[in-house]
Amino acid sequence: MPILSEGVAPIPWPRGVKCPVVLSFDVDADLLWNVWLTKEPSPIDVSQGIYDIKVGVPRVLAMLKRLGIKATFFIPGSIAERYPDTAKEIAAGGHEIAHHGYLHEDCGKLTREEEREMLRRGSATIKRITGEEPRGARLTLGRTTIANLSDLGFLYESTLMDDDQPYHISVNGKPSRLIELPVCFAFNDTSYFAYTFGLGKPFLTPREVETVYRDEFDAMLREKKYCMYMLHPQIIGRASRLDMLERTVRYMKSKPGVWFATALQVAEFCQTVLP
Amino acid sequence: MPILSEGVAPIPWPRGVKCPVVLSFDVDADLLWNVWLTKEPSPIDVSQGIYDIKVGVPRVLAMLKRLGIKATFFIPGSIAERYPDTAKEIAAGGHEIAHHGYLHEDCGKLTREEEREMLRRGSATIKRITGEEPRGARLTLGRTTIANLSDLGFLYESTLMDDDQPYHISVNGKPSRLIELPVCFAFNDTSYFAYTFGLGKPFLTPREVETVYRDEFDAMLREKKYCMYMLHPQIIGRASRLDMLERTVRYMKSKPGVWFATALQVAEFCQTVLP
Amino acid sequence: MPILSEGVAPIPWPRGVKCPVVLSFDVDADLLWNVWLTKEPSPIDVSQGIYDIKVGVPRVLAMLKRLGIKATFFIPGSIAERYPDTAKEIAAGGHEIAHHGYLHEDCGKLTREEEREMLRRGSATIKRITGEEPRGARLTLGRTTIANLSDLGFLYESTLMDDDQPYHISVNGKPSRLIELPVCFAFNDTSYFAYTFGLGKPFLTPREVETVYRDEFDAMLREKKYCMYMLHPQIIGRASRLDMLERTVRYMKSKPGVWFATALQVAEFCQTVLP
Amino acid sequence: MPILSEGVAPIPWPRGVKCPVVLSFDVDADLLWNVWLTKEPSPIDVSQGIYDIKVGVPRVLAMLKRLGIKATFFIPGSIAERYPDTAKEIAAGGHEIAHHGYLHEDCGKLTREEEREMLRRGSATIKRITGEEPRGARLTLGRTTIANLSDLGFLYESTLMDDDQPYHISVNGKPSRLIELPVCFAFNDTSYFAYTFGLGKPFLTPREVETVYRDEFDAMLREKKYCMYMLHPQIIGRASRLDMLERTVRYMKSKPGVWFATALQVAEFCQTVLP
Repeated sequence: MPILSEGVAPIPWPRGVKCPVVLSFDVDADLLWNVWLTKEPSPIDVSQGIYDIKVGVPRVLAMLKRLGIKATFFIPGSIAERYPDTAKEIAAGGHEIAHHGYLHEDCGKLTREEEREMLRRGSATIKRITGEEPRGARLTLGRTTIANLSDLGFLYESTLMDDDQPYHISVNGKPSRLIELPVCFAFNDTSYFAYTFGLGKPFLTPREVETVYRDEFDAMLREKKYCMYMLHPQIIGRASRLDMLERTVRYMKSKPGVWFATALQVAEFCQTVLP
Repeated sequence: MPILSEGVAPIPWPRGVKCPVVLSFDVDADLLWNVWLTKEPSPIDVSQGIYDIKVGVPRVLAMLKRLGIKATFFIPGSIAERYPDTAKEIAAGGHEIAHHGYLHEDCGKLTREEEREMLRRGSATIKRITGEEPRGARLTLGRTTIANLSDLGFLYESTLMDDDQPYHISVNGKPSRLIELPVCFAFNDTSYFAYTFGLGKPFLTPREVETVYRDEFDAMLREKKYCMYMLHPQIIGRASRLDMLERTVRYMKSKPGVWFATALQVAEFCQTVLP
Repeated sequence: MPILSEGVAPIPWPRGVKCPVVLSFDVDADLLWNVWLTKEPSPIDVSQGIYDIKVGVPRVLAMLKRLGIKATFFIPGSIAERYPDTAKEIAAGGHEIAHHGYLHEDCGKLTREEEREMLRRGSATIKRITGEEPRGARLTLGRTTIANLSDLGFLYESTLMDDDQPYHISVNGKPSRLIELPVCFAFNDTSYFAYTFGLGKPFLTPREVETVYRDEFDAMLREKKYCMYMLHPQIIGRASRLDMLERTVRYMKSKPGVWFATALQVAEFCQTVLP
Repeated sequence: MPILSEGVAPIPWPRGVKCPVVLSFDVDADLLWNVWLTKEPSPIDVSQGIYDIKVGVPRVLAMLKRLGIKATFFIPGSIAERYPDTAKEIAAGGHEIAHHGYLHEDCGKLTREEEREMLRRGSATIKRITGEEPRGARLTLGRTTIANLSDLGFLYESTLMDDDQPYHISVNGKPSRLIELPVCFAFNDTSYFAYTFGLGKPFLTPREVETVYRDEFDAMLREKKYCMYMLHPQIIGRASRLDMLERTVRYMKSKPGVWFATALQVAEFCQTVLP
């Protein structure tokens, strides 16, 4: 049997906790396809995005309620503005709403000032609609994004893939207070399921993906790392896929030491123990 | 066990019906490859399309007869003109024939007038050959397509992916009488099986796809939504794939409350109950 | 259980035969990658091609000998010239050698005269090395290829995908004596296994492909059609894949009514019964 | 049951050995993505590369220690320079460190002199950091690479795919002392698992890949060839994948006659027996 990797210090999770699990959902609606496609999204692509609002988010919220889990939703400001009832319903369910840009911007194409303005605008929009300002962000990072997030007092960022557990991210070579909650393609849904005409990429079955979700969780639990699911209601919210996710969550819940938490809860705890 | 998503009103299907299932087939012949490829289709691509006429449609019709199911066939006008015996044989089997453009046009490249002319020409061709004018359409939508379909008295359209059940589609912001019968990539065949040289896309086995068809059907039945299979005789009509579809249909038929209907039957019923 | 499709006349195979099976192998060596890649093949791509000669063909020949099956090998003239021992060893095993161009040309880019010259040169090369002139061909078809093959007295061609059984191919609208032995991606190996850096295409496991080979064979046997495997020793000749093919062949051999034949044997029989 | 292919002379492995197995790991860090992508790697791509250093290599080293296996690590000079502790920790574990260029160069774009300079620089860097000069190399080959490696006294090269066992590679048409240790996509990890946004390529599950690793090993053992796994800690080092590799290694260890060796050990032995 494999044992904990040597040389990587595990985080001392709260008493009784072996492995936090965060279910995070990016509510991109049709902006998803602006990001994925090099051409203008077609009416079909746009309609896939709208599935987020009409079906995906309601189905995900119903599942979370059945399971008694609070999750984290990353919502671009413009989407919250266009669909305020969706944003409010999520917040009313006790879930965290975090920053996801205003238009799902590629920060690599913004100046530091433009980026700062975008960050403020996104936060103000979320606050105006849901009453709470986001404490964390998931962004398409540019050179100044980490510094800007740190300056603006964000607690965490969640985009990078260089570790299996949270860490303090560096700003200009010095560790900052900003915590990175890393993600991976294994706990993603787009890597397996996102699809449209002309998009050459993998397309797996829920039964296949279920084996990866389980195997990767089993390993993270054994190593006392953490699991950050990075999902999209329009993708994972298709019924057969969400059934698969629910089976996976029930499997994870059956294991002692698993803590279903929001990204914010994990980041706040890490702030107390990370060097 | 998952339950019906909250916040989405299910359609009150006819007494005893929990879930309508529509088997729809796009008979594109070689036009399929004009749509899928950015280069000129090769003789091999064209021959894949001709498989529609020589093998795919006959094999599908034989299966439908064995199963006692009436289906909906979307046929471009020019294909019905080129292969009138195929179109007539389909109609003679009691199946619905619906509009699929004249040349499988991308309506986004037509003016409103050109589109209207194309719609009239496609309808007239189908009527001349089969004796019945199409009541529904599946088109590569442009800005004016919904308005044109509504003006010309069509009952339904079936291309979009923003819901798991039919709804009244809006024209210029106002709900119209036109009903959308949404589709999805899960109940498609090209997403899994379409393949030719140089086409970078998924290619799955029938055994894998069978799990998706079943899981997604199980969920739609449980949620009392509907299933719109969007298939192509040249793709699903390969023998090992059609055997898989037949196993799936026999599985679905074994469940109480499943109504195998044409798209037209579903649309006509929806017109009586949709708000 | 599915039954024979209506409307497609099955070929009256010889007494006791329900389904001929042809194992055909394209020995393209590095020319395979000139065809598949839009860029110049790298040394790695070229070395994949040479695997054909060093490992693929010997392993395939050993398997055919174990199984007591005669197969058909399509060899470009220039490859037979470069590797005459390989061509001779194949011929010495009693297998058919057929025409595969001189340089695996795309006939769509040749004039009718250039194509005729290429056909003569390929035939002469094969005859000079193996002592037998090819009677059949598998070519990347252009507008004049079928007419040229017919004029030059070829018996069959094997590239198209419009049927599940042989038929007389038309030349300028009139049926000719030339027989088409159609192929498909289901009984191919490149569709599942061909891979190199930068080539975005499916890549399946032998266990997955085995299910398709079996399911498709089962259906062809039931329908009394035929099976034309279109394989490449450098692809299917990888050991774990060839083990899978051998399991498949042993499965097929266990069924009554299966006739393992060369393409030439099938074409010669078809000439006696096809209208 | 398949037997040893005829016509390919097996290497007379040491007494009691039926099949050597080499686990080789390319430690490319973010340079992997410079090679795979045609665009500039994004921060996410770079972070995937850093996973090599933070998680992948430590997890792989821990596994090798548990299993008592010495492996071969191919490390670009610039990566060893940037992460000297990683290189030293690998060497301290008794593993072989081999040449992988200085910047993972495409040798096809270097002059013979530039290439020679790159080879010397890479060797000197590895020697300075780990104390040992590399004896073997894995490079993106150009026209002069084999000659240069031979002139500089390297013992082996490991990039090509034209055989299932080692052989003496030719320089300008004459066999040299340089031994090729061929690789294949079946025993690779990137072919199955490498993935990032916009990269259209296969993406399989560990459970699927496990079947290929086993089937291909079973065949190589039966044929008395050899197994050269070509892996990347940032790819195979994801926990669920490394668990799969560990299961595979334990399976292989359970078979009599399997020799887990470094690439250098295999090359040194081959030098004594190859013609």
